Amino acid sequence: MTDRRILLRRIPDGTPRPEDFEVAEAPPGPPLGPGQVRVRAEWLSLDPYVRALLSGRHFLRMPQPGEVLPAKAVARVVESRHATWRTGDRLVLETGLQSSAVSDAADAWRLHPGHVPASTALGILGMPGMTAYFGLLDVGQVRAGEVVLVSSAAGPVGSMVGQIAMLKGARAIGIAGSAEKCDWVRRVARFEACIDYRREDVDARLRELAPDGVHVFFDNTGGDLQHTVIGRRHLALGARVVLCGLVTQYNLKEAPPGPNLGVLMASRAKILPMVVYDYEHRREEFLREALAWHGAGRLAFKEDIVEGLEAAPAHFCRLMRGENFGKSLIRL
Amino acid sequence: MTDRRILLRRIPDGTPRPEDFEVAEAPPGPPLGPGQVRVRAEWLSLDPYVRALLSGRHFLRMPQPGEVLPAKAVARVVESRHATWRTGDRLVLETGLQSSAVSDAADAWRLHPGHVPASTALGILGMPGMTAYFGLLDVGQVRAGEVVLVSSAAGPVGSMVGQIAMLKGARAIGIAGSAEKCDWVRRVARFEACIDYRREDVDARLRELAPDGVHVFFDNTGGDLQHTVIGRRHLALGARVVLCGLVTQYNLKEAPPGPNLGVLMASRAKILPMVVYDYEHRREEFLREALAWHGAGRLAFKEDIVEGLEAAPAHFCRLMRGENFGKSLIRL
Repeated sequence: MTDRRILLRRIPDGTPRPEDFEVAEAPPGPPLGPGQVRVRAEWLSLDPYVRALLSGRHFLRMPQPGEVLPAKAVARVVESRHATWRTGDRLVLETGLQSSAVSDAADAWRLHPGHVPASTALGILGMPGMTAYFGLLDVGQVRAGEVVLVSSAAGPVGSMVGQIAMLKGARAIGIAGSAEKCDWVRRVARFEACIDYRREDVDARLRELAPDGVHVFFDNTGGDLQHTVIGRRHLALGARVVLCGLVTQYNLKEAPPGPNLGVLMASRAKILPMVVYDYEHRREEFLREALAWHGAGRLAFKEDIVEGLEAAPAHFCRLMRGENFGKSLIRL
Repeated sequence: MTDRRILLRRIPDGTPRPEDFEVAEAPPGPPLGPGQVRVRAEWLSLDPYVRALLSGRHFLRMPQPGEVLPAKAVARVVESRHATWRTGDRLVLETGLQSSAVSDAADAWRLHPGHVPASTALGILGMPGMTAYFGLLDVGQVRAGEVVLVSSAAGPVGSMVGQIAMLKGARAIGIAGSAEKCDWVRRVARFEACIDYRREDVDARLRELAPDGVHVFFDNTGGDLQHTVIGRRHLALGARVVLCGLVTQYNLKEAPPGPNLGVLMASRAKILPMVVYDYEHRREEFLREALAWHGAGRLAFKEDIVEGLEAAPAHFCRLMRGENFGKSLIRL
């Protein structure tokens, strides 16, 4: 089987189209240097932040045309000159969107043990789960009895935010982009409510659902929802806005203005950025608690899987149109 | 001498004009009820937040036409049925913009003792000073060696922010609106630098003065400066934006949009509101330290005084055009 990889053909203009990417045959990998491993991907993750990288507005490096797109993988070591990792080990690491990769494994961790599906290492037990966990508990400082509002509630970050909120005794209200997603958020993830922002008046619904305001607004989207929640005064006294994702603006050429900040004065609300990389040293703490919840059957999750690397460009474009439903994954 | 007071004639349309207000003869005050004092004002304070009240966007109550304008005073008790305050006591309290007032003195405190000018109780030792003190130290958490940037640097809050920053071992950079103000900020208040936003390119000057970014941005103005400092990426890693005043928008009918919040992610910067009323219970702590600094001659301050209540409307309008220089006061 030939190795394949997905290259960036050009920087997307607006919402990405499959022609912005290219499926290419990969040259044979180089011989391993000291400290390196060769891995073969089993699962590859598609994440919205990759579009932010392509906009040049993310703080991580902007990929250039001709380069392999960034992606995290669950991968098996097939050859090793690394001090820790052995052939046969299954790792979670950044490989790029390709079937095989050579890496110094600086960011790798061992796939969680046991009978938990491997794919969850890229979703509820991976970066999205950890983003939700530390974003809500450490940055957002949620307390029992508080109201947590989360956008992209059917996604891997949002669905975990609401479920962790409820596990900690808080109330969870979601916002999602279809009746089907909202239905899943309510019935399967068991949020108290979910607002369909494409068909409902978010401002009016929030006034009904959280008349005393929202204590933690976990913002995965920015844009109109941010203007509504912050600008229309839905923040409770002492609220925290966890600024986590800005998916509404990744496809835009210019970053649009934000809400007027004056409203923060009345509610004494803070705006706090959440950058998951800052929590890498606390991964064990997250995994311990998340694995226990998972083992007790208390974490619902939804995956949106396609087969084969060739399907990746179209799947990524669907993700960026908001047409995915659940964690976007490629099975190899 | 007849008692006089300043009434709101109508809600200003844009920048206030003297005709929006009215100097009126005050009716004789009512007999005192239990727990009340009658006070005679010696000094009255004009503050920009009063314009925010008139815009209806402040979290405190909006004054209505025909009512006395809000104002804090240094005033002497001339009659008392209050358990604590005696005739002859000098208090600092909310009286409204009038020469005499009846009050239950719920918010009153005793004028600081000693040889410190009484007017400073409305400036560096009053609400503006306390705003600077807790805003910088408690909300902004400034540390020695950090760079503090403050707008309205020649005003009572801004000039205290920079001076307290330096007293705590931090660096102070000001922004003000004239060469004369900038000169005072540098030479008298002894800031490291002061940018004249009307004549200099703030973005370019900040790149020179704080090439590694600003750690605390104490924002008294909002508007273009907020867009420049936050949006043009002048915040250092882990910066705190202390959101204190929005003087640029008090005269506007609609609150304008703020900067895009995405930039906070790269710098991990927080936006934190400062509401001085939340610190009322810590006034003694502030006064102890501020009086010691004042006693040691380490607090420069500038006052912009007019004589007589009749001068208040025009003086307030000057303040709202940014033409004042120093703490705006009326001596009765």
